[in-house]
Amino acid sequence: MNLLLTGFEPFDNSDRNPSLEIARELDRRRIGDVQVTSRILPVSMQRIAVALDTVLDETRPDLVLSLGLAGHESMIRIERFGMNLADFPIADNDGARSVDQALIPEGTVGVATTIPNRAIYDALLAAGIPARLSNTAGLYLCNACIYLTHAALTRRGSPARFGFLHLPYLPEQVAALLAGPRAGRLPEQVASMSLETMTRAVEIAIGSCAQSNVASARAASRS
Amino acid sequence: MNLLLTGFEPFDNSDRNPSLEIARELDRRRIGDVQVTSRILPVSMQRIAVALDTVLDETRPDLVLSLGLAGHESMIRIERFGMNLADFPIADNDGARSVDQALIPEGTVGVATTIPNRAIYDALLAAGIPARLSNTAGLYLCNACIYLTHAALTRRGSPARFGFLHLPYLPEQVAALLAGPRAGRLPEQVASMSLETMTRAVEIAIGSCAQSNVASARAASRS
Amino acid sequence: MNLLLTGFEPFDNSDRNPSLEIARELDRRRIGDVQVTSRILPVSMQRIAVALDTVLDETRPDLVLSLGLAGHESMIRIERFGMNLADFPIADNDGARSVDQALIPEGTVGVATTIPNRAIYDALLAAGIPARLSNTAGLYLCNACIYLTHAALTRRGSPARFGFLHLPYLPEQVAALLAGPRAGRLPEQVASMSLETMTRAVEIAIGSCAQSNVASARAASRS
Amino acid sequence: MNLLLTGFEPFDNSDRNPSLEIARELDRRRIGDVQVTSRILPVSMQRIAVALDTVLDETRPDLVLSLGLAGHESMIRIERFGMNLADFPIADNDGARSVDQALIPEGTVGVATTIPNRAIYDALLAAGIPARLSNTAGLYLCNACIYLTHAALTRRGSPARFGFLHLPYLPEQVAALLAGPRAGRLPEQVASMSLETMTRAVEIAIGSCAQSNVASARAASRS
Repeated sequence: MNLLLTGFEPFDNSDRNPSLEIARELDRRRIGDVQVTSRILPVSMQRIAVALDTVLDETRPDLVLSLGLAGHESMIRIERFGMNLADFPIADNDGARSVDQALIPEGTVGVATTIPNRAIYDALLAAGIPARLSNTAGLYLCNACIYLTHAALTRRGSPARFGFLHLPYLPEQVAALLAGPRAGRLPEQVASMSLETMTRAVEIAIGSCAQSNVASARAASRS
Repeated sequence: MNLLLTGFEPFDNSDRNPSLEIARELDRRRIGDVQVTSRILPVSMQRIAVALDTVLDETRPDLVLSLGLAGHESMIRIERFGMNLADFPIADNDGARSVDQALIPEGTVGVATTIPNRAIYDALLAAGIPARLSNTAGLYLCNACIYLTHAALTRRGSPARFGFLHLPYLPEQVAALLAGPRAGRLPEQVASMSLETMTRAVEIAIGSCAQSNVASARAASRS
Repeated sequence: MNLLLTGFEPFDNSDRNPSLEIARELDRRRIGDVQVTSRILPVSMQRIAVALDTVLDETRPDLVLSLGLAGHESMIRIERFGMNLADFPIADNDGARSVDQALIPEGTVGVATTIPNRAIYDALLAAGIPARLSNTAGLYLCNACIYLTHAALTRRGSPARFGFLHLPYLPEQVAALLAGPRAGRLPEQVASMSLETMTRAVEIAIGSCAQSNVASARAASRS
Repeated sequence: MNLLLTGFEPFDNSDRNPSLEIARELDRRRIGDVQVTSRILPVSMQRIAVALDTVLDETRPDLVLSLGLAGHESMIRIERFGMNLADFPIADNDGARSVDQALIPEGTVGVATTIPNRAIYDALLAAGIPARLSNTAGLYLCNACIYLTHAALTRRGSPARFGFLHLPYLPEQVAALLAGPRAGRLPEQVASMSLETMTRAVEIAIGSCAQSNVASARAASRS
């Protein structure tokens, strides 16, 4: 089973992004029956669709798991949906800021991620890792990634399941914010999660995806 | 230099408390010039004053660093003050709940912790660990620990500096809350910090305390 | 122009619900060119679809604006989407708790509200009322209301625009929570908004809907 | 009974401050047996002590109730303590920013407000107004006001009770923040409270103060 694992490059004046670091860390790793191939996506409205097409063509995955950073999040956030809308709170890495813009004109309103979100949630809690099921991935690049991945897989007729995990800040990112020029404007609480915990969470999620894929394949072969 | 490191036993239906685990982990450890001796305090209004007297008499420390758990906190919280008041949001481990009760009748309103809080803050941020200086330790047992430690050291004529660090939940504690009966009532965000990060934070704080004690001693010997 | 304004009955052990109070307050009111007719919906998975059908048949509206309570929200929350999923954090008023249940089997993943959400947002801020555009109405009855209203209007071939506003607690509801048995478990901050401010917000939103409907009608008649 | 009611001028780029507006609104008002005289204090470390001396000399109050704004607070926050420390998250209206600076060198660590905080809390909740007892007024000008008022009254040998209420943003202030240049950096939730609710809260607090003063005077005259 080939799994494409994507992360995003750093953005918003940070030089780190846990999604990038975990994608790189797990690249070429074998987790159970799953062979992981990682790619990094641009934080760019203009370039993300082409980038997704490229990485899907290069890797032809059976499973797609995308990772992104959600600043001020405290848990592993398992995204259920992607919506056909871009409305950016801050500019992207090209300095562009979409406002109320459809990702695909005439596209369907929303899509659902198809990896076993509830099983991942249960597995993370069982492993002692805080997680939550989420109904919105925001309207920045992470949401665009979900919506456009669905579209790209559909165009290819690919049966690959896909999903998205949002990750908290790394502790080092919060420490940098607290030592930085906007410190006096930060909320009193800014959560983080260690790279080790987040990496373990992604490995567990990959395991849940694989198990579920195998179960479906068996069910299909029996019928 | 002998440092007394205290933690608290678990409370509020949890079977874990990071302050206890870190105190035990660092017990008998030598960190630079500091020899650590750890003790665990009861989450009990009725028993904490005697417990503090006992551990101070047993250990005769040059420095006292106390640790406690602050659920829903996201950072290492460095406490500046202890107040002469107990007003508990929940019952303690004896089932008792103090309301607007002075810790020491006729005692002074507030006391300041005397370890180098700002230096600890700077050292933690420099190490990439989220931290904040705090003006209130709440009015539960942690605040009582600060106020009563000050009183106990003063009664002994001890020059030992003392301080208090509040710690976030462990990831496993948040996962247990999310899997537990009150899950539907929790806020959307509940922060945590890994035991590794918190242990490193306490070691760094101990290092800052030691450095500052040595500097003071040198200054005193010169004068 | 006939506008159906819906509110929800109280739920979750409260005896108040601002959405109900505002719907009743504005019932039979004329706001500009809009004639308001109000109805109260049950907080019940089993009964809401039939209730919506009944009120739509009774009122045959040109516009539908639904209101609901979002505890712990601080602003007027303008909902952009409804999703085909029920996943309740707490039981409904029948004591039933849906988990990962489709609202309409084989239904589309998500629907978008069609009132001029951005214009309402701008009008509320201009009037000094805190508001935000929201990407998720949760997965409780409010989301079900959005999704099922869309379905019911579509089944009728109705061109009526529809939308949803989530409202904060009333101050009196927060005061009751603070005086109640769960006070020690509440987050430090629980926001509220006065009934007057919320009622004014709904009137402003109705005005924005009407203006936009008139503008569309004129555009249509010109072409 | 003469009550001095103080508010603060606007600060931090806002042109409003609910504490100023309520102080002005209630100036010269008679509330039960209480005659209110209001004064506005500068948001200035350099000028606040002199300003407090001046207003106390001018008004010779039997009671002092000070009001201040706590942005991002959701309730009426009743302050129990003032600490001998200034540590500003942002500059004051003179552009000055105190860091770890004692308000009165050699002054006591902390002081307690002496109005009946618990009775005010109970009265506010009974009136349906969200309120909370607070252990820290921050380390900005509001805390300085508490600490320095205590010192100024003590210097005068005044038996006047004094206290402090922190107020949330006005709805219009939050709307202005949401429409302003820092909107994309704000937390998702920013609470507010209507001027009417806050004014009623201050009137209720004044009533509680008066009742308690009368009760003490009677008790004193009996003994």
